[in-house]
Amino acid sequence: MANTEFSYVKSFELPDSLPPSNFIVVRIDGRGFSKLCKKYRFAKPNDRRAIDLMNSAALEVVKSFQDIILAYGQSDEYSFVFGEGTQIWERRSAKLATSVASLFTAEYVMQWNDPKFFGGNAEEGKEKVELTRPFPSFDGRCVCYPKKKILRDYLAWRQADCHINNLYNTTFWSMVLKGEGMSGTAAEEELKGTLAKDKNEILWSRYGINYNNEDAVWRKGTVVYRAYDDEENGADGQGKAQKVTARPQSKSQLEKERKRKMKARIVVEHTDIIGDDFWNKRPYILGTGE
Amino acid sequence: MANTEFSYVKSFELPDSLPPSNFIVVRIDGRGFSKLCKKYRFAKPNDRRAIDLMNSAALEVVKSFQDIILAYGQSDEYSFVFGEGTQIWERRSAKLATSVASLFTAEYVMQWNDPKFFGGNAEEGKEKVELTRPFPSFDGRCVCYPKKKILRDYLAWRQADCHINNLYNTTFWSMVLKGEGMSGTAAEEELKGTLAKDKNEILWSRYGINYNNEDAVWRKGTVVYRAYDDEENGADGQGKAQKVTARPQSKSQLEKERKRKMKARIVVEHTDIIGDDFWNKRPYILGTGE
Amino acid sequence: MANTEFSYVKSFELPDSLPPSNFIVVRIDGRGFSKLCKKYRFAKPNDRRAIDLMNSAALEVVKSFQDIILAYGQSDEYSFVFGEGTQIWERRSAKLATSVASLFTAEYVMQWNDPKFFGGNAEEGKEKVELTRPFPSFDGRCVCYPKKKILRDYLAWRQADCHINNLYNTTFWSMVLKGEGMSGTAAEEELKGTLAKDKNEILWSRYGINYNNEDAVWRKGTVVYRAYDDEENGADGQGKAQKVTARPQSKSQLEKERKRKMKARIVVEHTDIIGDDFWNKRPYILGTGE
Amino acid sequence: MANTEFSYVKSFELPDSLPPSNFIVVRIDGRGFSKLCKKYRFAKPNDRRAIDLMNSAALEVVKSFQDIILAYGQSDEYSFVFGEGTQIWERRSAKLATSVASLFTAEYVMQWNDPKFFGGNAEEGKEKVELTRPFPSFDGRCVCYPKKKILRDYLAWRQADCHINNLYNTTFWSMVLKGEGMSGTAAEEELKGTLAKDKNEILWSRYGINYNNEDAVWRKGTVVYRAYDDEENGADGQGKAQKVTARPQSKSQLEKERKRKMKARIVVEHTDIIGDDFWNKRPYILGTGE
Repeated sequence: MANTEFSYVKSFELPDSLPPSNFIVVRIDGRGFSKLCKKYRFAKPNDRRAIDLMNSAALEVVKSFQDIILAYGQSDEYSFVFGEGTQIWERRSAKLATSVASLFTAEYVMQWNDPKFFGGNAEEGKEKVELTRPFPSFDGRCVCYPKKKILRDYLAWRQADCHINNLYNTTFWSMVLKGEGMSGTAAEEELKGTLAKDKNEILWSRYGINYNNEDAVWRKGTVVYRAYDDEENGADGQGKAQKVTARPQSKSQLEKERKRKMKARIVVEHTDIIGDDFWNKRPYILGTGE
Repeated sequence: MANTEFSYVKSFELPDSLPPSNFIVVRIDGRGFSKLCKKYRFAKPNDRRAIDLMNSAALEVVKSFQDIILAYGQSDEYSFVFGEGTQIWERRSAKLATSVASLFTAEYVMQWNDPKFFGGNAEEGKEKVELTRPFPSFDGRCVCYPKKKILRDYLAWRQADCHINNLYNTTFWSMVLKGEGMSGTAAEEELKGTLAKDKNEILWSRYGINYNNEDAVWRKGTVVYRAYDDEENGADGQGKAQKVTARPQSKSQLEKERKRKMKARIVVEHTDIIGDDFWNKRPYILGTGE
Repeated sequence: MANTEFSYVKSFELPDSLPPSNFIVVRIDGRGFSKLCKKYRFAKPNDRRAIDLMNSAALEVVKSFQDIILAYGQSDEYSFVFGEGTQIWERRSAKLATSVASLFTAEYVMQWNDPKFFGGNAEEGKEKVELTRPFPSFDGRCVCYPKKKILRDYLAWRQADCHINNLYNTTFWSMVLKGEGMSGTAAEEELKGTLAKDKNEILWSRYGINYNNEDAVWRKGTVVYRAYDDEENGADGQGKAQKVTARPQSKSQLEKERKRKMKARIVVEHTDIIGDDFWNKRPYILGTGE
Repeated sequence: MANTEFSYVKSFELPDSLPPSNFIVVRIDGRGFSKLCKKYRFAKPNDRRAIDLMNSAALEVVKSFQDIILAYGQSDEYSFVFGEGTQIWERRSAKLATSVASLFTAEYVMQWNDPKFFGGNAEEGKEKVELTRPFPSFDGRCVCYPKKKILRDYLAWRQADCHINNLYNTTFWSMVLKGEGMSGTAAEEELKGTLAKDKNEILWSRYGINYNNEDAVWRKGTVVYRAYDDEENGADGQGKAQKVTARPQSKSQLEKERKRKMKARIVVEHTDIIGDDFWNKRPYILGTGE
């Protein structure tokens, strides 16, 4: 039969399962989003509708993949964290990265026209913004983090990046758009080599802006996570932490786990995840055990 | 600075460049498309608007990536072939698979509402079909094929698969939907173990269908390729084949190559790619050299 | 220059660094050692000279690679554990596996002729055993273990394997070689499906052997490790545990670490490593931290 | 049973089979051989016994692995080429690299004491050279080459490297050891930036050395290959080339192939493998087909 003659070509598909007992982060990034920001005239330094759309798309992705324990997003990027023991698709790297990137894309472009985002809103005096080619798309990759502490450092890295960029952008665009208005080049020149406190000072002294009063969505980015803090999950209101172990779970354990996940609330917050506080209050996110 | 303290986490991103001098096939597959077919009541055995939408999305992907030399699609899958020497994104596997899957997804859902597809068409009496969650999405993977002959066998494998499935489906759905109408189980039972000629015979004797007259889009699937068959590219009307070599090209060669690709026509056909004829007439697709 | 024309071939060497913050186990196995046992008439069930030679070769490997924190061997296999933060050869997998396998091989065949092993020993009435082709050789592979607990489970797996095989072999060869002497087939048949306690009972009732009195080298295998239990390293006589962290170390930390390793004793023991006792007494082996 | 509790650790061993239809080169390199050359006072620029030992060890490796079609060595390195269709150990990378490196090591240290090499030879007035720790060892790696042309470029790269280094070393050591004797630094200084013809001129004009008359083992390195040039294999005295195809072979084909390999002669030569001549005369080495 014709098919058997050719089917040896399947042997060229190499296995790509990620190692067990590692958190899997799928990070997606907008492709060519600096062009896209200009094309659709996103507000500077930050566009509320654009970030709300990112967060709304991410929320749907988290809903869709039960094994995502937490997601963190800022600017045009989002990191989706799968639990260290996830068995989804045998942990196949390409399957995971493409499924997440594809679903995120579908949600992003489908929700674009929502009145909450770019669909136009007569009441608020917002015009519809028509999507045209090239349509928004996202690339992605899987990265494995072997330990809770390192996963937290990864997330801290992204949130620190958010802070650094947002402080810079807030200052830069104040200098360009407010007061007498500097040229971009002049603002860039002046900001070269400045520290955080210098930028805070510029914002305060020249524009009366207290950076700490800026909206947390810009300063902290967005965390989306499954919360197990109801009565059923933990009498202390914090949720029970599951003991995570590398040893495989029995079928009944897996079934119990699946039901537990279905009951979880999904929470969206703009809060600090660098310090210990967030994690100490929600021990169920990373689980206990090494 | 906070960021340097955490930036070691970047070292967990392992390199994933695919080996040089291999054709790279990015194959995408619809996620959960059997459910989706039912949900949107796609016609059986084949839905014209659905396949036209697939092909239209694929065309945009081919347009968007100059290094795609050919794509082949059938049912809810599409294979995009990048030239064996492509240097796009240093041949990084995750970047390639996610970018293609994401762009295809964006095109698929954005074009869905086109009157040509599911947007409704009063003239043709077609109603609009509203997309609802879960939105269509696609997974994908990269596979390397080291030689022209093997790449052709890969494509032949997909086209043989198209033929086998379509002959089966055409027969099965004729038995179920035409004449007195068998139950699915009964049709399945009768078809068990039948050869191609048996199915052809059933189609002809019972339903007056000559399978070879079925539309080629179903029998052969769809080929999309860059054609270099104009005067400039080849006096013989077949296009000049480029000599492909594993040795790196100079900047001026790369620039020349880029301009050549921009001038290429993109062709969509439903034709046999198992035999030699297609390839002999278009030597420029795979190039010469080993 | 001729060389530049060809040097593009280097690009086919793909990177193979193992992920950071994982213990790296290089396990080597004798190639074709069941044949080799017969050829050199190794004693059954266990040959003292052969196992001593394995352990002596392993000791030299541990001495040679400062980053090996512990090794465990039994039968014709040895597992060498590199510390989770090792930076040796950028953690390149092939370099690690081949270097260990090659050095072990060199030591094994060079020490073979030692009077302690197969070099002959007039005093003890042992004849020299000449090595002939095919010479002993060993294959190997690297495996990453992301957490202390899992590394311990790996080592427990090997030691449990040692126990199971040795109990079986001790019983089997007693049945064949002692008393009236059964055929191999008959002994195999009788042992089929027996539990540990059944084998213990056979050994005791038929041959007066208390399995627990068998030499620990057979029952437990061999552990080789770097000990930091001198005064300098820990006042409590147990050695100070180093805090291991995924974050990169400074040069002065690395230098301090190097000196510490040079001062360590290397210890060879036949002891239980499945329970907690061994590890609790030597916290410096795996270090503290997650 | 204890073993099942731990056996999940096997899942951390990731598959590492190399892609089909690629030549697999296992290249081994002496570890720390510049030190070793000094320690054993190898003759400069080249030591005959040392290179003969390398070649003799390589010969045994080629004999031992039927799927090696050719090996090329120079200095302290050797490249073993496995046929593009080899199925040995499912083409597992670590298994291949460690087995070759280990066997080569065993042969190297076991043959060291042969009178032909460093075992001492009263007749020729050569003293025995005792091997002491650290014993010679070799690291290795697998590299895949997808096409005949690229494999040839790889081998050409190694042979060009041999030529370049040997011409340099021959000139350098003539300057240092012959005539009045320059210092190493002075010779190095004078050779900086010289071309091949300059070095040839220095050799001829100052030391009366015609580089082309130097022994081919130094100028060309060493090729070891399986020859199929007997009557049975090819009436033309060149041997029949096998058609190599990526499609899997039947059992009877594999058996036939195995017998053919067993009958092959193994040839050791010091000849040019950069040009076409060597390959045109021995089409059976790489086979026909793409």
